[in-house]
Amino acid sequence: THRGTSTFQKKLHIQNAGVLANGTVLTHLNKSRKDNTGLDLTPLMIGSEGTLGIVTRAVLLLSPPPPDIFTALCALPPPETSVDLLNLAQKKLTVCAYEVMWPDYFALTAKLEGHSFFDKAPEMVVLLEAEQPLETFLEGALEAGLVEDAIIAQSLSDAGRFWDVREGHRLDDALPGLMNFDVSLPLGEMSRFVDMVRADVVSRFADAKVLFFGHMGDGNLHAVIHTDVTNEAIQHEIDLIVYGHVRHLKGSVSAEHGIGLLKKDWLSYSQSADEITAMQAIKSALDPKGIMNPGKLI
Amino acid sequence: THRGTSTFQKKLHIQNAGVLANGTVLTHLNKSRKDNTGLDLTPLMIGSEGTLGIVTRAVLLLSPPPPDIFTALCALPPPETSVDLLNLAQKKLTVCAYEVMWPDYFALTAKLEGHSFFDKAPEMVVLLEAEQPLETFLEGALEAGLVEDAIIAQSLSDAGRFWDVREGHRLDDALPGLMNFDVSLPLGEMSRFVDMVRADVVSRFADAKVLFFGHMGDGNLHAVIHTDVTNEAIQHEIDLIVYGHVRHLKGSVSAEHGIGLLKKDWLSYSQSADEITAMQAIKSALDPKGIMNPGKLI
Repeated sequence: THRGTSTFQKKLHIQNAGVLANGTVLTHLNKSRKDNTGLDLTPLMIGSEGTLGIVTRAVLLLSPPPPDIFTALCALPPPETSVDLLNLAQKKLTVCAYEVMWPDYFALTAKLEGHSFFDKAPEMVVLLEAEQPLETFLEGALEAGLVEDAIIAQSLSDAGRFWDVREGHRLDDALPGLMNFDVSLPLGEMSRFVDMVRADVVSRFADAKVLFFGHMGDGNLHAVIHTDVTNEAIQHEIDLIVYGHVRHLKGSVSAEHGIGLLKKDWLSYSQSADEITAMQAIKSALDPKGIMNPGKLI
Repeated sequence: THRGTSTFQKKLHIQNAGVLANGTVLTHLNKSRKDNTGLDLTPLMIGSEGTLGIVTRAVLLLSPPPPDIFTALCALPPPETSVDLLNLAQKKLTVCAYEVMWPDYFALTAKLEGHSFFDKAPEMVVLLEAEQPLETFLEGALEAGLVEDAIIAQSLSDAGRFWDVREGHRLDDALPGLMNFDVSLPLGEMSRFVDMVRADVVSRFADAKVLFFGHMGDGNLHAVIHTDVTNEAIQHEIDLIVYGHVRHLKGSVSAEHGIGLLKKDWLSYSQSADEITAMQAIKSALDPKGIMNPGKLI
């Protein structure tokens, strides 16, 4: 689920079995955690979007869920302190989620959900979840000037209200035809990226709504961009702005959702021509006739 | 260092830059944690032992060391309870190291180091390190019958003595010409593997010493095998016994140290013919003239 992906993703040890284009069945369902015997084909299959083979079975390493999860909604002071607060949280807590909402996004989704949380419109909002109680941590963060106000969930339904706002289920209805972006950036570049994208989009489309939220712990940022009138040419212009800044800041044009068909034209914004050539060579070696998920990815 | 590898290895997020056989420079030094843009070439380079390209730069994600580490040496009761104790430790503690020593190994290396720890020769010994104090945990483990006796290090030099015995630096001098094995196995099969290898080696070479220790948290087991007389034919016979059982139990013939030249003949014991063919196809695609580390691995 989307919520699942918003928490810190543990790198799972995965082994898979797959079928290649020529009918070869690879069955490396080795349950050993450590294995240094030759090229590691498993991570090559992960993210290949079916272009190298079809995964038919998988071995997963499961972790038990944490016994308790504590949730808080934090209003951050200007100037923006979200990276400092994240660093402090990772030092003091076992952080399960660190979801940042820029003020426009938060104001709109809170309004759509009918929730009101803070007396004063916050500069930035963080939904924090950790395995430890949050009172002491938040007191320290308040004293250190990293948090301006915070609400600790007293129940699962409180936490659910925080997540409703983060997930913004009603955005699609409120902003029909909105564009959704899924990019990642080095942590230190996120704010700059947000400012530049917003400025460029608004300078070109004065009526545009440019909203940001992100799974900051993972470096993953989502942008929601809406213009009153839209068509393919306008969408392409907005793509160019967003992915242009991603390329400039050495980010990724697809943090979570892959390339498929929609982002095929933008692959070269995150991967060099030489990298794409190397991918094509591997693709041709394992699928010389190009029959595995043809036309996708590369 | 060897000690480093004995702790639970965190999967580091690594990006690398490399040079391929045709001079292509891949420079995917993307610092984003999440990136789903095409085939992931980085894990393909890791473990390729220079057969696909030469890594020239790398981005590593560093974790701060834990503020405190607590160390204990635990004697386990018969029948062997090392897997149960590991499961309990992983539930109650943040485990940094869980090193198992079978009784022959422990008795010999403790003697070589001149250390004496337990009144009664233990069935199995575990060197446990965790981020939390160990008193309460070990009391519980004693009551649950998972531990028979335990010594908690009161100083770094105590902990150093425990590690000296685990590392067995004097083994090479005491057992000249010993063979060292680095394999991994599903946790539940380790004891069976140890019993079968010992029985088979001793039935063939009555004078053999067959000693085991392992980084059990990682499923990684090391065997030290010594015979009074040794030559290539004897070594091959012992290889056949050890790797035969690894293959049978679906383990890995190389947990940590790779394949190189020495284990090339045994690669097929952990990887199927189809898997090796797929590796060769990738190797040929990226290095058609076979100039990268020729003759190694595949």
